[in-house]
Amino acid sequence: MSKLDQVLAHLDKNLDKAVERLFVLLRYQSISTDPAYKAQCVKTAEHLKGDLGTIGFAASVRPTKGHPVVMGQAKGGDGKKRPHFLFYGHYDVQPVDPLSLWHSPPFEPRLVEIEPGRKAILARGACDDKGQTMTFVEACRAWKEVTGSLPIDVTALIEGEEECGSVNLPAFVAANKNELKADAALVCDTGMWDRHTPAITSTLRGLVYEQVTIKAADRDLHSGVFGGGAANPINVLTKILGGIKNDDGRIVLENFYDGVHELPTQVKNDWAALNLTAEDFLGQVGLSVPVGEKGRMLIEMVQSRPTCDINGIWGGYTGEGSKTVIPSEASAKVSFRLVGDQDPGKISAAFEKFIRDRLPKDCEAIFIHHANSPALALPFDSPLLTKARHALLSEWGKAPVTIGTGGSVPIVGDFKRMLGMDTLLVGFGLDDDRVHSPNEKYDLSSFHHGMRSWARIIDALAS
Amino acid sequence: MSKLDQVLAHLDKNLDKAVERLFVLLRYQSISTDPAYKAQCVKTAEHLKGDLGTIGFAASVRPTKGHPVVMGQAKGGDGKKRPHFLFYGHYDVQPVDPLSLWHSPPFEPRLVEIEPGRKAILARGACDDKGQTMTFVEACRAWKEVTGSLPIDVTALIEGEEECGSVNLPAFVAANKNELKADAALVCDTGMWDRHTPAITSTLRGLVYEQVTIKAADRDLHSGVFGGGAANPINVLTKILGGIKNDDGRIVLENFYDGVHELPTQVKNDWAALNLTAEDFLGQVGLSVPVGEKGRMLIEMVQSRPTCDINGIWGGYTGEGSKTVIPSEASAKVSFRLVGDQDPGKISAAFEKFIRDRLPKDCEAIFIHHANSPALALPFDSPLLTKARHALLSEWGKAPVTIGTGGSVPIVGDFKRMLGMDTLLVGFGLDDDRVHSPNEKYDLSSFHHGMRSWARIIDALAS
Repeated sequence: MSKLDQVLAHLDKNLDKAVERLFVLLRYQSISTDPAYKAQCVKTAEHLKGDLGTIGFAASVRPTKGHPVVMGQAKGGDGKKRPHFLFYGHYDVQPVDPLSLWHSPPFEPRLVEIEPGRKAILARGACDDKGQTMTFVEACRAWKEVTGSLPIDVTALIEGEEECGSVNLPAFVAANKNELKADAALVCDTGMWDRHTPAITSTLRGLVYEQVTIKAADRDLHSGVFGGGAANPINVLTKILGGIKNDDGRIVLENFYDGVHELPTQVKNDWAALNLTAEDFLGQVGLSVPVGEKGRMLIEMVQSRPTCDINGIWGGYTGEGSKTVIPSEASAKVSFRLVGDQDPGKISAAFEKFIRDRLPKDCEAIFIHHANSPALALPFDSPLLTKARHALLSEWGKAPVTIGTGGSVPIVGDFKRMLGMDTLLVGFGLDDDRVHSPNEKYDLSSFHHGMRSWARIIDALAS
Repeated sequence: MSKLDQVLAHLDKNLDKAVERLFVLLRYQSISTDPAYKAQCVKTAEHLKGDLGTIGFAASVRPTKGHPVVMGQAKGGDGKKRPHFLFYGHYDVQPVDPLSLWHSPPFEPRLVEIEPGRKAILARGACDDKGQTMTFVEACRAWKEVTGSLPIDVTALIEGEEECGSVNLPAFVAANKNELKADAALVCDTGMWDRHTPAITSTLRGLVYEQVTIKAADRDLHSGVFGGGAANPINVLTKILGGIKNDDGRIVLENFYDGVHELPTQVKNDWAALNLTAEDFLGQVGLSVPVGEKGRMLIEMVQSRPTCDINGIWGGYTGEGSKTVIPSEASAKVSFRLVGDQDPGKISAAFEKFIRDRLPKDCEAIFIHHANSPALALPFDSPLLTKARHALLSEWGKAPVTIGTGGSVPIVGDFKRMLGMDTLLVGFGLDDDRVHSPNEKYDLSSFHHGMRSWARIIDALAS
C-alpha cells in the first residue's frame, strides 16, 4: 500500500472526526464586515492557530489593521530543498441576514440528508470558506498522522477579511514577502463544474473600470427653449456608449482584441463537450439569449472572451413624473473584463479615445479610472496544472474541466504581482451551496472528496 | 386726432401713474408655490378685482382648489354683437431665493437707470407676469378714460397658479366655458425678439413625454460571473436610445416627420434675416454647435422642427467608486417636441415600436406615458395675426417677427381644446429680464410701448 493510499484510507476512516473539527470551526461567528463580531474573528484565528499547531505547523496569529491573519509553516526534509507551496484560505464569513430565512441557526452546524443518499453540512461558512479551507488542512493532517510529515513544504495563509474586501491583505503580503514566497499558491475557494465533475480554475478575467461624465451647457436648460439646438449630454452619452459594440457583439474600441488568444483546441473541445446551454446558465436568472460575440460558445463568452458592461448610468431628472430639462451633464460607469494579454492601460486609453473621438466639440468628457488589472492565466501546459489534473481524475474518476472565472480574484493578482507566483485554484463548491445566502451548505461529498483530492495533489506536487 | 391717437397720448401723459399702479401690484408677495404666501395671493387677487372694477369691468374673485382666479367682463356696445376677446395673465410670481443675490428687496419695486438712457422697473414679477399683465390693463384703462368704453368686449382671466403648474386652471376653464368663450384669446407672457423688434408668438411646439424601463435578468448580476453572457439593460437602453437620431440629426422613428410642414417662404426669409447665430443663442449657455437636423437654420431647430431629448436616465450603481453589477433594469425619460400636424398618439406609439423592435427577446420594456399634446399654430394668414402685425409695426417702427416658442404653453392648448379658440401671444419681455432669477426687471420701454401696443391692437381688433 503506497503512502498516498494509506493517507486516503486514513481520511476515509476518520471522516467523522474531520466533520466534528469543521463543526467546531463553524461555531465561531466570524462575520468580518460587522464590527460587533471583532472578538469572534480573533477567537477564530486563535482556534486555527491551535489546530495548525497540532499537525506540525509553526503557527501564529498576526495582527493587521483589521482582523488578524493566521500564518503557519510546515517545513520538513531536514533542510533539503523541497517544493514549497503557499496555501490561501479565509476564516471569515458573510453576515447571516435575514436570519428568519434560515431553517436552523447559522452557527449551529448540522449534518442532514438533503435528498436520498446526499448529505450536507449546514451552517454559515460550511462551504465559503471554512469547509473548503478545512479540506486542505485535513489532507495535511492525514499526511502528518500517517507519515509523520508532509511531503512538501507548506506555508498557510488564512485571512479574516475576504468577505469585506481583503483591504489589509496586500499590505500584509508586501510586508511578509520572504515568508510567503513559494513555488506557487494553492487556493480552495472556487467550485466544481457539477456534482460529479471537478474543475480547475486556470484563468481569471482582468478588469478595467471607468467612469465618464459628459458635460454640455454650463447649466440645466429648458427643453422647450433649447431643445433641438443645444447638445444634450444624455443623448450624447447614449449615442456614444450605444455604439461601443457592433451588431455582432464585438467591442469596437481601437485594438481592443489585441492580446486576446483563441483557446487551445483541446480546451475548446473540452468546453464544447460541457455543453453549457443558455437554458442552464441564463435560465436561472430569467434570461435566454446570450449577448456575446456571434459564433462563440456561451462558456467562452463568460470565461475566455472580453466584455463591456455599463454598470451604472445617471443624468437629468429621475424623479416621479416629467420634467422637460436638458441637463448640463450625464455620467456612466463602464467596465471591461479582460482576458489573455490584453493591456489594461491600453484599454483604458482606447475607451477614453473612443469617447473623445465622438464628442461634439462643445462638450467635455471627464474620466475617473476606478480599476485596472490584467487577466491572469495558468498556462494550459503548466506542470502544476498537469499534476492537479491527474490527481483530480484519479479521485473523481472523471477528468477535471479547466475553466475560467469571469471575475477577478484580487489575491491571485497580488500573488502574481508581488511574489511572482502563479496560483492553482481548486475548489469543491457547488452551484446550489447558497454561498452568501441563508441556509448555506457544503455537500459531505465535497468535503470528503475534497480532502482526498488535496491529499492526492500534495502527493503529486511532491514529485 | 383719432380716438387711438388720443388714447396713446393719454398713455404717454399718465405713464408715471401707470408705473405707480404697477408698483402697488408688485408689492404683493404672491408666491404661489409656497403655502406661506396663500393669504398674499388672495390679497393680490382682491386688489386686481378692485382695479379692474375702476375701469368698467364687472370683476370677481373666483375660488379654485388652489389660489383664486380673477375674472372680469367689460362688455359694451349696448347689446350689439361686438368682437370679444379673452385676455389671460397671471398675478402669481416665482419664489425669490436666494434672497442674498438681490440688490434690493424683491417686493419693494424701484425704477432705476440700468444703463445710460435705459430705465427699468426692478422687482419680482416686474416682467413675469405682473408687468406684462398691466400693459394690457393700462391699455384698457386708457381706452375707458379717453372714450368712455372699450371698442371691443373683453373678458379678463388672471390666474394665480401659473408658476406652480396651473393645476386647477383646466377644471376652472371647463366649469366656466360659457363665460370664457370668445373669438380668440390674447396672452401677454412672452418676449420681444430684441429691444427694438417686437415679436408675435404664433406657433407652440407640442410635447410627447415618455418613460421607458428595460428589464433583463430577474435580479442584479455579478458582471464577473455573467458579463458577456447576460443581457445588460443599460447596454440595451443606450444602444436603442443612441440610435434614435441618425448622423444628420434626423429622428428615425417610423413616420416621425408626417405632418411636419416647411415654413412659408416669407417666414423663412424673415427668420433668415434675423440671423440667429449659434454664438448668440448657444453662447449664453456655454455651447457653440447646433445639434438639430443638418441644413436647417438654428432658429428652425428650436422653433419649427421637432426634437427628441432624453431628459433623464438611470440604472445600476451610481454611488462612489465601482461596483461590478449588471443591473436588472434601467430607465429613461424621453420627450419629443412636436410641430405642425404631428400626431402625439402616433409619435408615442412609434416610440414604443422603436424600442420593442430593437429589444432582445428575453428583455421586457415597460412604458409610462407622461404627456401628450399636439403643436399649436395660428395660421400665418390669420386676420388676428395680420391685425396684430400692423399694430406692432406702427408702434415700434419695425415689423414684428413671427416666431415660435419651443415649449408648450398649456393654457393655449386648453383654450384650443376646450373652447375651440386660437390665441394671440404678444409680449414685451427681454432676454435679460432675469425672469425666475434674482433681480428680475422690466424695461420701462417694454412697459410703456407694451401699453401702447395693446392700445393699438385693441383698436385693430375692433374693426
